Amino acid sequence: MKTEKGCVVAPKGFYAAGKSTGLKRKRKDMSLIYSEKPCNVAAVFTTNEVKASSVLHNMELYNKGKKARAIIINSGNANACTGEEGLNNTYKMAEETAACLALKPEDVYVNSTGVIGVQLPMDTIISGIREVSLALDDDIVSGINCAEGILTTDTFIKDKAVEIIIDDKKVKIGGIAKGSGMIHPNMATMLSFITTDVNIDDAVFKDLLKEIADDTYNMISVDGDTSTNDSVIALANGMAGNELLTKEHKDYNVFKDAFTFVCKHLATQIVKDGEGATKFMAVNVLNADTKENAKKIAKSIIGSSLVKTAFFGEDANWGRVLCAAGYSGVKFNPNIVTLSFKSAKGEIELYKDGIALDFDEEKALEILQQVEIEIDINMNMGNEKATAWGCDLSYEYVKINGEYRS
Amino acid sequence: MKTEKGCVVAPKGFYAAGKSTGLKRKRKDMSLIYSEKPCNVAAVFTTNEVKASSVLHNMELYNKGKKARAIIINSGNANACTGEEGLNNTYKMAEETAACLALKPEDVYVNSTGVIGVQLPMDTIISGIREVSLALDDDIVSGINCAEGILTTDTFIKDKAVEIIIDDKKVKIGGIAKGSGMIHPNMATMLSFITTDVNIDDAVFKDLLKEIADDTYNMISVDGDTSTNDSVIALANGMAGNELLTKEHKDYNVFKDAFTFVCKHLATQIVKDGEGATKFMAVNVLNADTKENAKKIAKSIIGSSLVKTAFFGEDANWGRVLCAAGYSGVKFNPNIVTLSFKSAKGEIELYKDGIALDFDEEKALEILQQVEIEIDINMNMGNEKATAWGCDLSYEYVKINGEYRS
Repeated sequence: MKTEKGCVVAPKGFYAAGKSTGLKRKRKDMSLIYSEKPCNVAAVFTTNEVKASSVLHNMELYNKGKKARAIIINSGNANACTGEEGLNNTYKMAEETAACLALKPEDVYVNSTGVIGVQLPMDTIISGIREVSLALDDDIVSGINCAEGILTTDTFIKDKAVEIIIDDKKVKIGGIAKGSGMIHPNMATMLSFITTDVNIDDAVFKDLLKEIADDTYNMISVDGDTSTNDSVIALANGMAGNELLTKEHKDYNVFKDAFTFVCKHLATQIVKDGEGATKFMAVNVLNADTKENAKKIAKSIIGSSLVKTAFFGEDANWGRVLCAAGYSGVKFNPNIVTLSFKSAKGEIELYKDGIALDFDEEKALEILQQVEIEIDINMNMGNEKATAWGCDLSYEYVKINGEYRS
Repeated sequence: MKTEKGCVVAPKGFYAAGKSTGLKRKRKDMSLIYSEKPCNVAAVFTTNEVKASSVLHNMELYNKGKKARAIIINSGNANACTGEEGLNNTYKMAEETAACLALKPEDVYVNSTGVIGVQLPMDTIISGIREVSLALDDDIVSGINCAEGILTTDTFIKDKAVEIIIDDKKVKIGGIAKGSGMIHPNMATMLSFITTDVNIDDAVFKDLLKEIADDTYNMISVDGDTSTNDSVIALANGMAGNELLTKEHKDYNVFKDAFTFVCKHLATQIVKDGEGATKFMAVNVLNADTKENAKKIAKSIIGSSLVKTAFFGEDANWGRVLCAAGYSGVKFNPNIVTLSFKSAKGEIELYKDGIALDFDEEKALEILQQVEIEIDINMNMGNEKATAWGCDLSYEYVKINGEYRS
């Protein structure tokens, strides 16, 4: 596997663009991804009962199992809690994109992110779609522009592309993401779009994204809130020309590993750009009895406000970590658990066999002063493991999210 | 029902004390509650898998179904994550308390709150138990001292007592509580102790506390973390002389209402003293399909960091409230939900029938600038309701919980 440039335009036959079209002041606010050939689609959508119009639209398309050709995304307005008018506007976005690209509306997935409860300014949206359609290209800059157009309050673009070899053919996977941006009044929203030129069985592609999303996008936490718009959509246009990829294909795992690599990279980039984050934390749950329980424990720890503030304060507060494991809903014996913190500056064991260990406070502080920190919790119950990624809870988080909307 | 003074000593036959015994600098750190006669016991304990030694001890006692005579409580050290030695120390606390009061060790419930992972200084503890035993009295000051001795970083004592009439007899209920104090390294811990002189069937008493705790103590949230030590323990010594209270007793609901009033008062006081809290919020979920779902939605909203920071910022951010309802795990139709905020300054409707309503921003700000705010969310699905209480998430919360332990 080697790293490539160009994110979503790295795979063969994909074009992209990102433009400033007037939805946001002086920043890119409209992105488009287009494939020469029809694509198999794999997607996961927010489990929130309150779904944005675009999510409802995309889920309907997805459930029909049809191929897709394009994804249009606007930032600056989430088109959520906007009722019938909002749904109509989503459909108009698909229609206009289709018209510009000589496609059918059902070939187009639509995504929106930004302020909620406000109707889309459709004149701006329509002219924006025309503008961004004209800008489509397959050069690296167009990929980067596309990555930029989906951002809200993200402080950097999230993109990645890799190349692998399947059946002696070059296969590429590229992706972009946006993270937990806050716009008044809004909530954290995660969007990620992936393109690949692999030739892959449709059902296999769909299952694989679901599996990988559960281990990557669904294992990150900035503040535990699931938004109305969260979506991951992947397109595969088959233009690499490999033999159809199924689970039995000898290179299935080569593709799976590369796909996982791209998703994990994008997911962890989202966390690193978490609102007000000063630390990046990975919680590794080791030797749990089941994979599901390992995930539950990891997510409970990474989601604890007390754990998050302790890491912001560079405090070796293992008690809060153990406590968060304790209320994860997983049964375990605290008397056989071991707990340690590690970073580039070393590792320190804090708890073992039901009791606190004496530890060197200076060494602990040195470890915790690093930006990237790992928490290892060994349940000593079985052989399953899971990792969750998150960030600390800082003054800045409260500031960003508590500021009056005006 | 009328309010009484003296909290846990208000009911007949109860004595209490609280003393500074050297566990904390210059603050009361040891409390004792004692009944002349054996008491029926009702209790609820933390569901955290990691339980403090005292909780393990109390659960064992409770499961034996025996009567009790005393509760000893130390603050400043939680005796959690302290292994075999910690368990032995809890037992020694029961033994010493029993010796001082001419009881058996199994007559004594033991509670600890404070720093975790550190062994109790047993010399100080033993001399403290002797001191506090000698101070037992049934005057109002002793009740207040007792309420003070269980505090950690609470900024005020939480106490309440009421009198009701059952079978023409005066029956009293008194209680104390401590809230989400933070001591390095520690987590929020809730303790509450209730005394009553009612003559009540043991099984009815136990069921009633469980039911009431689910609607009061279990409906508050400061930061969503459940601690290793959380406990509510209630003692009933029967000295009021009423006919045995069962569910069939004509005054059962009089007692139930008064008991609920005391528990709700103590639970909401805990929230009002939440770490760094500047606002007190009540989330009323109305017309849900089931009681359980109403509770789930209310707790999801009150626990959202995005909702909590919005209220800290006095921001009418109804989108975050709806979003938190959406990821509560309860199925509902967002298009029939209505949402409003209210306080002493009035009420403002923000969302209805799937769309955002235009609202007066100045009026909203005026409502949200109050310290006590209610959020009403009407699901329009059925007839069940629930209320959860919580507080905002402030800079001060991050400061208190992020400060380095030294």
